[in-house]
Formats: sequence, structure tokens, C-alpha cells
Amino acid sequence: MKKNNSVGIVEQKSVVFGENGDDPFILESGKKLQPLTLLYETYGELNEKKNNAILVIHALTGNAHAAGRHTQSDKKTGWWDDMIGPGKTFDTDKYFILCSNCIGGCSGSIGPRSINPKTNKRYNMDFPIFTITDMVRAQYKLMQYLTIDKWLAIVGGSMGGMQALQWAVDYPDSSVSIIAIATASSLSPQAIAFDWVGREAIMSDPNWNNGNYEDIIPEKGLATARMLAHITYLSDKSMDIKFGRRMGNSETNSKNFTKNFQVESYLAYQGQRFVERFDANSYLYITRAMDFFDLSNKTNGDLASALSSSESKFLLISFTSDWLFSPEESKKIVHALRRNNTDVVYCNIESNCGHDAFLIESETISPLISDFINCRYKEEKDVK
Amino acid sequence: MKKNNSVGIVEQKSVVFGENGDDPFILESGKKLQPLTLLYETYGELNEKKNNAILVIHALTGNAHAAGRHTQSDKKTGWWDDMIGPGKTFDTDKYFILCSNCIGGCSGSIGPRSINPKTNKRYNMDFPIFTITDMVRAQYKLMQYLTIDKWLAIVGGSMGGMQALQWAVDYPDSSVSIIAIATASSLSPQAIAFDWVGREAIMSDPNWNNGNYEDIIPEKGLATARMLAHITYLSDKSMDIKFGRRMGNSETNSKNFTKNFQVESYLAYQGQRFVERFDANSYLYITRAMDFFDLSNKTNGDLASALSSSESKFLLISFTSDWLFSPEESKKIVHALRRNNTDVVYCNIESNCGHDAFLIESETISPLISDFINCRYKEEKDVK
Repeated sequence: MKKNNSVGIVEQKSVVFGENGDDPFILESGKKLQPLTLLYETYGELNEKKNNAILVIHALTGNAHAAGRHTQSDKKTGWWDDMIGPGKTFDTDKYFILCSNCIGGCSGSIGPRSINPKTNKRYNMDFPIFTITDMVRAQYKLMQYLTIDKWLAIVGGSMGGMQALQWAVDYPDSSVSIIAIATASSLSPQAIAFDWVGREAIMSDPNWNNGNYEDIIPEKGLATARMLAHITYLSDKSMDIKFGRRMGNSETNSKNFTKNFQVESYLAYQGQRFVERFDANSYLYITRAMDFFDLSNKTNGDLASALSSSESKFLLISFTSDWLFSPEESKKIVHALRRNNTDVVYCNIESNCGHDAFLIESETISPLISDFINCRYKEEKDVK
Repeated sequence: MKKNNSVGIVEQKSVVFGENGDDPFILESGKKLQPLTLLYETYGELNEKKNNAILVIHALTGNAHAAGRHTQSDKKTGWWDDMIGPGKTFDTDKYFILCSNCIGGCSGSIGPRSINPKTNKRYNMDFPIFTITDMVRAQYKLMQYLTIDKWLAIVGGSMGGMQALQWAVDYPDSSVSIIAIATASSLSPQAIAFDWVGREAIMSDPNWNNGNYEDIIPEKGLATARMLAHITYLSDKSMDIKFGRRMGNSETNSKNFTKNFQVESYLAYQGQRFVERFDANSYLYITRAMDFFDLSNKTNGDLASALSSSESKFLLISFTSDWLFSPEESKKIVHALRRNNTDVVYCNIESNCGHDAFLIESETISPLISDFINCRYKEEKDVK
């Protein structure tokens, strides 16, 4: 893996569907989104046979900016820059990578803060409830728009993994392979409960104002929700190692309610950074989409049946210390795929990093993923 | 265990120390609490030799009302009524049981909502920071007041267990035995983090008003803190069994942000009940006391050394699915006691109930505790 290779300066692209009153995007609920704006980025070149396209799907608070920089002076690269680039796991010398901001997101695609053409005001809480299936259907529209018939791979972690799996159910012949990392076929009641408390924190903030805010945003509520979520992304072990019960340096020794413990300063920092980049209403809608996600909701809870039409080969990866999307959740999916005699590789990676491992343990998962994709690509080339 | 036997109607008692300007209660911080009011209840009779006294210590949101009813029409009995009474585990036909509300509590003992004699206003956030050690020292004052020289047992779960262990360190010859259930020698960084987020929820509520509230209390913030804490009291398994992903009956089928899932209705209910009975400022102070608790903070982290002077025999109980006060935390204490050649019985009980098991698994822990106490009582009688 050539770590220092970068895709360089990348461009944000966007497409608007149904702008002229035609081709409305009908959500699972039956409600309509028109126009439907999607923001996306691409890296590498689509080959002539169009058989080298990989769809990368971001997690809850991610965006379309998966690799490279927007300007030379950008301090931060895209969220999966260590995996996407020339010679990297998702090798842009060989593959064409697409990443789009999910619908309901707050990073360029249509979402609660977009203008509702009917009212010329922000949607806010009038934005329709959307689902993981809706996110996938928006990506499918983008796929058609780019005249891609079949993905070489669809890959995502966490909520991105949910979407990758939903692709396998809704468009069973649309991808050669599915790579689902640190994910689940549905959220556990414990995870639903954490989401509930996070949303309560946001909706209790008077600045949330039923979703109608402008300059004064529900900063405290959103920060509290993020801090809570952040705990669930770490593991008890990683917190022990990273912070223990150590006290912060900048504080006085007297015990009080300020940030005495390092773990408290860390959380406060994470909460503050988050409110600068993420919209509270989007957070409400997207966590709700995750709550309602259930891969087998159309097959009476039968996961194998839900996945039975899929023509893809699967790679599933989980992490031992991930308690939000536990290895047991991945194993359920693996068992269902095996019952269908579907080709599936499963790795449960030993890691202390909790759910965050899916972004941290790049060096460990990189060879697994690149081998898997390269094999699929070779198979495709050999056949065609 | 005779389940239906009750201690009957019980009386709340209280004592005020330092009312006349003498005998101030000096906190670990050096600050003074004067007067010091403690509310307590007792069950059973202290015998002539005064060797049948058991101190029962409540958890974070508990109170002195451990058994019986205050009036005939009381719907609810005390919080450990299934354990305390004639013929029960803490057999009031044999033993004298004392339970007092901790300092800083909001159920009769002095706390942030008490009147500061210096200002004739509520202390609120002017209440001094107190520690688990301070709670224990207040109980010690009560012990002296009641002219009890030695407890037969000191027993507590969760924060009550922390205090029981602190007794062993601070007053090593004051109890024949210590029973510490579902507890730890210090909070893990994960638990500190959850406490932090809970307090942030309270302190972000504008009705908290820097702790100065009267009729309009920081209801939403306190409910959010409680809901969050409640998740940590259950286990993923118990939530799976109790709620799964089942939907509530009272709601429509359309997906929205209201209480669609049963687990959400449950949490909302728990949050609402809590704000009716517990004070927000007390919650801040008591969780902070738990954060700072470290049994070995005066022995450079050496737990064995901290406990080396104790003359007590120990019973430690943990529960397999308790992830807030995990079995590993109890094992640390057991190892330290064994290094000291201290007599210790340790049971790690198989349970799905998470941290709440310490209140739920009464039938399982009852024989362990009653055997342990009865043996200690027999030893005392045989010797004397």
C-alpha cells in the first residue's frame, strides 16, 4: 500500500434529478422529493467496459469527500484517503471510485436544510422521513445517470455497510461484490436506545425550535448527542488505554464540574468540532433511518430469504471490540448468506478500537479488501 | 426466605449535627457542612450486645427508605423490601438494619437543595463538592450517635458498594464484614464519560439556570440524563429479550420521531418518573462523587495496600452481563484482598440483567448473603 500517494485535488460534482417537473423521486413512504440533488465525487477513470466501478458509501456523519483535497491549502483529506488513491486499496490507477452524499445528508445532497420548492423555505422537519432503501435508490439513480450497468464492488462501513447490504437485496444483480464492514442487518434495541437519547438531547435544546433555526443552532443538544454517540464508537478497552482516569493538564487540581478527566476534554472537543460541520436536523433524520433499517423487513425477518436473489460475492468484516455493531451481527448475515450457498468471506478482526476500528484499522483490513477486489476484477476480465 | 413478611409501617428519622455551632462536619475538600442533617430508617431491634447491626447503603438515586411502607396506603415499599424483613435475607427478627440517605442526596439528608444557613437560600451549586469518603464519614457520625461500636455487616450495591469498600479503608476495624455487590474500586473512563454526557444534558437545559431553579425544573435535561444512565443499567441481551425491535401499540404505523419502538416508550417513561422524584443538582453532585471515587487514591493506586488494614471478612458479588460495573472490576478487588490474605468470598452470577441485576436477582443472591451474614453472626456470638 503506497500510503503517500494521493488522488490530489478533487472536484465536487452534483446532479439534479426531476428539475423540470418530470422524473420525481418517490420515497418508500410514498412521498415525493423533487428536485433531487445529489452531490458526489469520483476518483480514477471508468474504463471502456465500465467494469471497474466501485461504489464507496459513507457512514452516518460522513460525506462524498472520500479522498484527496478540494484545494491545495486544505488541511484535511477525504475521510477514507488512506484507502483510496493510486496504488492504495481502492487503486485509482485501476478502478473508478464513486462516493455520494446520502439523501438527507447535509453535505451537498438534498436534506432537511434544503429549500422546499413548494414553500421557498427550508424543509426542516417538513422533510419527509426517508430510509436506507431510499438512500440506495438515490445511488441507483446516480448509477443510471453515469451509465454504469454493474458495480465491481459496493463497499461501506457502519451505515455505509447497511446500504451495501440493502443494494444486495434491492438490486441483486447490480454488483459483482459487496463489502460490508462493521455493520448489521438491523440496529439492536440498545443502539436504538442510544439514538433515541441523542435525538432527545437535540430536540430538548430550545435552539432547535422544532427544527426551525438559522444562525443560532441547537449547538448544545447536538454536541451532547455527538458525545454520547462517540462513547459507543469506542470500546471500554480503547478508552482505558487512551485516557484511563488521567486528569487534564490545563485544569486545576480542585475537583469540580469542569473537564477534570482527559476523557471529558476529549468528548467536549469532539462535540464542539461536530456542531461546526453537521446539521442537527440531518442527524435526527439519518439516525432515524438507521433505527428503521431492517434488511429482512420484507421477508418476515428471514435474512437468508431477503438475500437469496443476490448474485454478488460478499466480504464481511467485523471487529472484536465493536459493541455497537457487534461481530454477532455480522455473523447473522454470514450465516444467512451461507444458507443460500452464497460465496462469502468473513473476517472478525481482533481490535481494541471498538466500532471506530472500521476507520482506524486500515492497515489490517486493506490487504483483505484489495485481494478480494482484485480477485473479483480478474474474474470479470477473464470472463468477458 | 419468607417473601410476604414485611417490616410494616416504618418511620423516617433524622438527626442534625452541629446545629448549635459546635461539631462542624469537615469535608475531604476542607469545606464545612454545618449543620449536617441526615435522614435514616431502621428496621428490627439493636440487641443488648449491639452486635447485630447491619448498615445497608443505597445506590446513586436511592434513599433511606429500604423496607416497609410509610403509610398503609403507600403503593410502593422500600427499595430493598424483598431483602429486608422478618425471615428475609436481612432478617429483622435477628438483625438491626440501618439505612441513611447519603449526604448530597435529595431525600431528607443535607444536599444542594437544602438551605444554606449563611445565605438563607438554597445551596444549589454553592453546595461544596463531596466525595464517597464524605458519605462514609457522615454514616460514621450516625454510627457514633447511635452508640454502635461495630457493624456486623456493611452492605451495598453499585455506589452503595463503593461506600462499603471505602468503610473498609477508612474505618478498618468498624465492621465484621463487608458485602459489596456490582461495584468497583473506581469508575472506568467509559462510565465517567457517560456521567459527563448526562451532566451536560442537565446543565444544557436552560431551566437548570446554573442550578438556581424553583418550580420550573430542568426536566428535559434530567430525563435525558436518566434515560442515558438507564441504558447502561441494562444489558444488550436484556434489552433484546425485553423489547427487541418491537413497535409500541399506541403509535400509528407511520415512521416518525415519536416513540415508535417499545424501548423508546420505556426510556421516556423512566425519564419522566425520575424527574418527579430526583433533584437535578443532587444528580450532578452524586455522579461527580462517583467519578472521583478511587479506593486506592491514597496508596498510589495500590488496591491491596489500601485494603490492608481491614479486619473485615468480605463477600463480593458481580453479574456476568454487568458492563457498567463489570465482573473484572470486582475481580480486581478480590485479587487485592487475596494478596492481603483477607477472607473473601466472590461470586460472579450468571445473569442477563446487566447492572440492574443487583436489585433484580434477589432470589439468587439472597442465600449467598444470608449464609454469609448468619455465619458472621454465629462467629461473633461464639466468641463473645
